[in-house]
Amino acid sequence: MSDAPITWSLLTAQARMAAGTCTASEYAEALLAHALALEPTLHAYAHLDPAYVRREAARADLTHATARGVLHGIPVGVKDIIGTADLPTRCGSTVAPDPRLATDATVVERLRAAGGYVFGKTVTTEFAFYTPGSTTNPHNAAHTPGGSSSGSAAAVASGSVPVAIGTQTNGSVIRPAAYCGIVGFRPTRDALPYTGISLFSPTLDTAGVFARNVADATRLASVLAERGRVAPATVPREKPPRIALLPRFPWTTIQPEMEARLDAVASRLRLAGAEIVAVSLPDALNAAPDIHKTIVLHEGASNLEAVQRRARAQLSARLNDALDAGRAIDGDAYRAALASRRVMIAAALDWMQHYDAVLSPAAPGAAPAGLGSTGDPACCTLWSLLDAPAIALPMGRDGAGLPLGMQLASTPDADDALLNVAAWIEAKLAPRTPRPGAAE
Amino acid sequence: MSDAPITWSLLTAQARMAAGTCTASEYAEALLAHALALEPTLHAYAHLDPAYVRREAARADLTHATARGVLHGIPVGVKDIIGTADLPTRCGSTVAPDPRLATDATVVERLRAAGGYVFGKTVTTEFAFYTPGSTTNPHNAAHTPGGSSSGSAAAVASGSVPVAIGTQTNGSVIRPAAYCGIVGFRPTRDALPYTGISLFSPTLDTAGVFARNVADATRLASVLAERGRVAPATVPREKPPRIALLPRFPWTTIQPEMEARLDAVASRLRLAGAEIVAVSLPDALNAAPDIHKTIVLHEGASNLEAVQRRARAQLSARLNDALDAGRAIDGDAYRAALASRRVMIAAALDWMQHYDAVLSPAAPGAAPAGLGSTGDPACCTLWSLLDAPAIALPMGRDGAGLPLGMQLASTPDADDALLNVAAWIEAKLAPRTPRPGAAE
Repeated sequence: MSDAPITWSLLTAQARMAAGTCTASEYAEALLAHALALEPTLHAYAHLDPAYVRREAARADLTHATARGVLHGIPVGVKDIIGTADLPTRCGSTVAPDPRLATDATVVERLRAAGGYVFGKTVTTEFAFYTPGSTTNPHNAAHTPGGSSSGSAAAVASGSVPVAIGTQTNGSVIRPAAYCGIVGFRPTRDALPYTGISLFSPTLDTAGVFARNVADATRLASVLAERGRVAPATVPREKPPRIALLPRFPWTTIQPEMEARLDAVASRLRLAGAEIVAVSLPDALNAAPDIHKTIVLHEGASNLEAVQRRARAQLSARLNDALDAGRAIDGDAYRAALASRRVMIAAALDWMQHYDAVLSPAAPGAAPAGLGSTGDPACCTLWSLLDAPAIALPMGRDGAGLPLGMQLASTPDADDALLNVAAWIEAKLAPRTPRPGAAE
Repeated sequence: MSDAPITWSLLTAQARMAAGTCTASEYAEALLAHALALEPTLHAYAHLDPAYVRREAARADLTHATARGVLHGIPVGVKDIIGTADLPTRCGSTVAPDPRLATDATVVERLRAAGGYVFGKTVTTEFAFYTPGSTTNPHNAAHTPGGSSSGSAAAVASGSVPVAIGTQTNGSVIRPAAYCGIVGFRPTRDALPYTGISLFSPTLDTAGVFARNVADATRLASVLAERGRVAPATVPREKPPRIALLPRFPWTTIQPEMEARLDAVASRLRLAGAEIVAVSLPDALNAAPDIHKTIVLHEGASNLEAVQRRARAQLSARLNDALDAGRAIDGDAYRAALASRRVMIAAALDWMQHYDAVLSPAAPGAAPAGLGSTGDPACCTLWSLLDAPAIALPMGRDGAGLPLGMQLASTPDADDALLNVAAWIEAKLAPRTPRPGAAE
């Protein structure tokens, strides 16, 4: 197994730097060289300035002996709708930057306070809606990386950063994580502060993290989260989890290869001791996509109203159409949707609390071909609407070599418990390393 | 009835200024003279600069003919934990100001965009916790005005502004509104943006408004709220509401005069056609105060950690003790409290959805004597924990001449419907003006 810095997890990089076998600057140089070589095809970054990265890494090296936070010297990709005081924030658009994004978002403050630094601003779809940026899928440049946190997922998957921050309103963390074959964690909305991040739908917008394993996602989330919401590391489970298997959602078609893989995973987890209970979606949750759409369009129209009024011609037709549609939704319909959402949250809690997590596909299939669309968020809509924390875990590749992702979801505020289940599953699915001397 | 500007509601002031019978500057002068005369006793303002008020009012007059927002020329009291770009924000403390509060909070941006202006920063308890500021009750200076939004409530009740903005984490809008004899509206947390306001408990902190009637509270809330959450005016009800009467909470003692008044109000509403159903609190909600306390102390300890580390000696013993206690709460207890809260929210929705509103006391009694405490928030804790929108309405005075307040609460996101019920009740309780020629 290669020991190149681009393969290091956050925790490995941290251990090497703490031990002094690699400086923050050496680590940064290795990642920079890799990132710069990939960028002409990958386009993961909206802003990547080698001189800036070198300064940040050098500063970490300067304080190596005196002030070491839990992310000391760790470079983090930051989605380009998240405010940064010292780097531009353009929201995947050519419109004039929002001055409110010219200071550090609270998540950025926290990553810096922990000793980490912003490696670059990662490509987002236009205002984190559906019009794609230029990022390609690191596994096949003819396929979408997913969106809207396209660059964050692609950067982590390709190895130019160990971890990145993104946001999700519908499927913008889980879907790109699955398409790129990495871990994506969308916590309960309130677990991570949204202050300083461009708003589309205040009810649904949620910050999340990308990593290459659950331990790294946990570590980064714990740093960014409200204290105590997410422990810095998961505790090994004493007993196997009880998992609801939800193989499909009534509003979308799951591709056969995805369905088969999820089944195989469930079987393997059952063999590992998990209790797997096949379930179908309670009828009370069937309207989730309609309710989600009403809320997101109504709120988006309001939050981007000033931008659209000022710069309509600079927005994509797709975004203009969505904002126009949102403006046409009346207050009664909006308030009815908010009320329905509350009823659904209560119904879902009633249903989900019998399981440690619900296992479902992270997307209908692997990343579709073409860069004109970021794929279908239909497998994420329910959890986003319910504010159910969710995590995408890779589960191998399809026949064409593209990653397939599963999704685990739990009840609001059960973030820590969800990460715990995810870590258990990740361990059980890991390629077996035979113990020395162990007979099969 | 007096027609002095200090008695004008927001809507009256607006009508007078729109008609040109009073300029914004004339209105401001009348309020300023009143405020300055009261301040030596009332201490409603942490910052009140007549020259600033005059400039803001003059600017409104300049744009009188060209740009009239729905709050044109309206002065608003703004609690001193809410960030303002052009006025200091001190959070009721002598510690160095938080630079993040040196820009306009989103609610302030919105009130300015609607043509209103900040009349002054109103006194808050220390960091909106329990250590009182200097404000007195406008009805009796030997009594507390309530807290933490002490100055906002006192300013509106005394007539120096028609409306004000405050915040509530436990009982900081409802309680001072009730103690001061005015309307206080604590919406669903997400209805009003919290960006740019000092955080204590991100899960519970909520912005709210003070006014002297429901129509004014509705108008201000609609301006500050996410578009469509709160209509600019309530629609007259077609049929009387169905109201649950909850005369007490198991964790506090309601004073006899309050209990009797609430009963009398319920009888009057029944006569007016309302269906009144006496209820007691479902057992599932009994632990609300414990859960609330765990969350608020744990989160407060985290959010004020840097302040306390830097300036412990400048904080009150009460606040230091609370933050220390919060720091001692472990992550498991905190996460368990968050999970319990979610279960309670679901249980409450199940219970509350059968009524248009739940009617309860806004406080155990009238404002207690003394300025060393801001009174007991026990009647607000449940609704704050559940994120149930609540509104305080005055219901006369006690034997000592101090106001008594009722409280109406509804399910999360039913803000508009709650204001509608409140307007109906307010109308039914208004002193009857005999219609000309009408025989009783």
